[in-house]
Amino acid sequence: MQIARSIPEMKALRSKCVESVGFVPTMGYLHEGHIELVRVARRDNPVAVVSIFVNPTQFAPNEDYKAYPRDLDRDLSVLDKVKTGIVFIPDSDEMYAGGYNTWVDVQGITGKLEGKSRPTHFRGVTTICNKLFNIVQPDKAYFGQKDAQQALVIQKMVADLNMNLEVIVCPTIREKDGLAMSSRNTYLTDSERLSAPVLYRSLCMARDMFAKGERDAGIIRKAMADLISQEPAAKIDYVSIADMQTLDEVDTIKSKALVSLAVRLGKPRLIDNIVLG
Amino acid sequence: MQIARSIPEMKALRSKCVESVGFVPTMGYLHEGHIELVRVARRDNPVAVVSIFVNPTQFAPNEDYKAYPRDLDRDLSVLDKVKTGIVFIPDSDEMYAGGYNTWVDVQGITGKLEGKSRPTHFRGVTTICNKLFNIVQPDKAYFGQKDAQQALVIQKMVADLNMNLEVIVCPTIREKDGLAMSSRNTYLTDSERLSAPVLYRSLCMARDMFAKGERDAGIIRKAMADLISQEPAAKIDYVSIADMQTLDEVDTIKSKALVSLAVRLGKPRLIDNIVLG
Repeated sequence: MQIARSIPEMKALRSKCVESVGFVPTMGYLHEGHIELVRVARRDNPVAVVSIFVNPTQFAPNEDYKAYPRDLDRDLSVLDKVKTGIVFIPDSDEMYAGGYNTWVDVQGITGKLEGKSRPTHFRGVTTICNKLFNIVQPDKAYFGQKDAQQALVIQKMVADLNMNLEVIVCPTIREKDGLAMSSRNTYLTDSERLSAPVLYRSLCMARDMFAKGERDAGIIRKAMADLISQEPAAKIDYVSIADMQTLDEVDTIKSKALVSLAVRLGKPRLIDNIVLG
Repeated sequence: MQIARSIPEMKALRSKCVESVGFVPTMGYLHEGHIELVRVARRDNPVAVVSIFVNPTQFAPNEDYKAYPRDLDRDLSVLDKVKTGIVFIPDSDEMYAGGYNTWVDVQGITGKLEGKSRPTHFRGVTTICNKLFNIVQPDKAYFGQKDAQQALVIQKMVADLNMNLEVIVCPTIREKDGLAMSSRNTYLTDSERLSAPVLYRSLCMARDMFAKGERDAGIIRKAMADLISQEPAAKIDYVSIADMQTLDEVDTIKSKALVSLAVRLGKPRLIDNIVLG
């Protein structure tokens, strides 16, 4: 496993890869969800590149940039085990060098769901992914379905800007009790951790209602919210059933729909989703 | 000379180029300024790609998108003569396909000079250049010094987003009387055309004053404005002496400075510049 700690180092290593490169951009503190993305990348490509970079520009000033969990030694040891070819650990000062002032902005869908609660978040995500794609020049980049809106936004950027890679979205990896894996799960207290599976339970309930023929999105949303509200620690940010392309809320589920939610459990804010149809 | 009329065609032709590719993005209606860029691109690279695309997103609604001069047959014949390898003539509907919604924005320097008069202009320029760079994947892209701010903005985007090409700025090509070549010069009436060299005359005067030791930017700006005002048809938009990096106006010329101006002659709006120091 080779480690690149600067942009020129990464570009130099990339230029030596003659076959296809799979790329998994991460903010580190890797869990099984990330590792599964690396496994898929390795299965599809001779070389998997993983970046570890807690990207400051996707955090708002009131968010957890400084507190975001970090454990580089453990990350490197895990990545070595799954035969990662190259780990790219850029430096924030190099990525956003003095006078940095260029932003990549996907409009429209970034104003919905997560974007409504976190108005500058996706601009930070698309900008850093654009930069990382230019540096790593992957043939394929792998993202988790857990951040469904992020995956849609990245796919939209890649298509609109004619970037030369394929974005592949892999299924959400869950704990045994259904909680979607996330580096932020470490923020949960023991009792919050016990409440956390309610997010997935509410999604499963939506799936069951849909399977039994319910097509009224409002009825499903309300049932989900009612279930979540039974957890005293849970504070709903949103429960959404939206069109897969526009992320506009739907009244009636006609074709595919994204069921997604954001819930605060104490301080931590958790998100999850499934696709119906 | 090969012609690509769609993005997949262009990408397919590009993938067959094994050696370095030089790229000259244009809006067509080519003049000697463009042709000189193609010559330099051909001198530096085995293959020169020229794009012809009047980019709607860099025109404001009140600007001349529809009226912008076009002559594809003449352009192709001229490009063939200077041994252009590939001409890319994309379609607006393909470049901005249904639901297009991604923008690349260089902030800061785009708010000055041309950006002040044309607030959405540079966002259109950076977005289309980003797309064209991704499609053509050039090793080097060539721009004219005549659009000095545009060249700076593109260089900033390429550096900030870690794009894999070099931006090369070539000297302004002028008519015998000093008027900088521009497709928009065709808008000038005969009498406006006679007045037009006053832009370059004022720049030469600035150069002379600087050569004789004048370092007070205000004095030079005023002398330039006075000279231009002697042409009754001329209406000054701006006369600027600015820092080369920030494009902030300077009081005293200490190192390099960009002397630039925009002047309306009747309807047409002309720009020009030189670098001092």
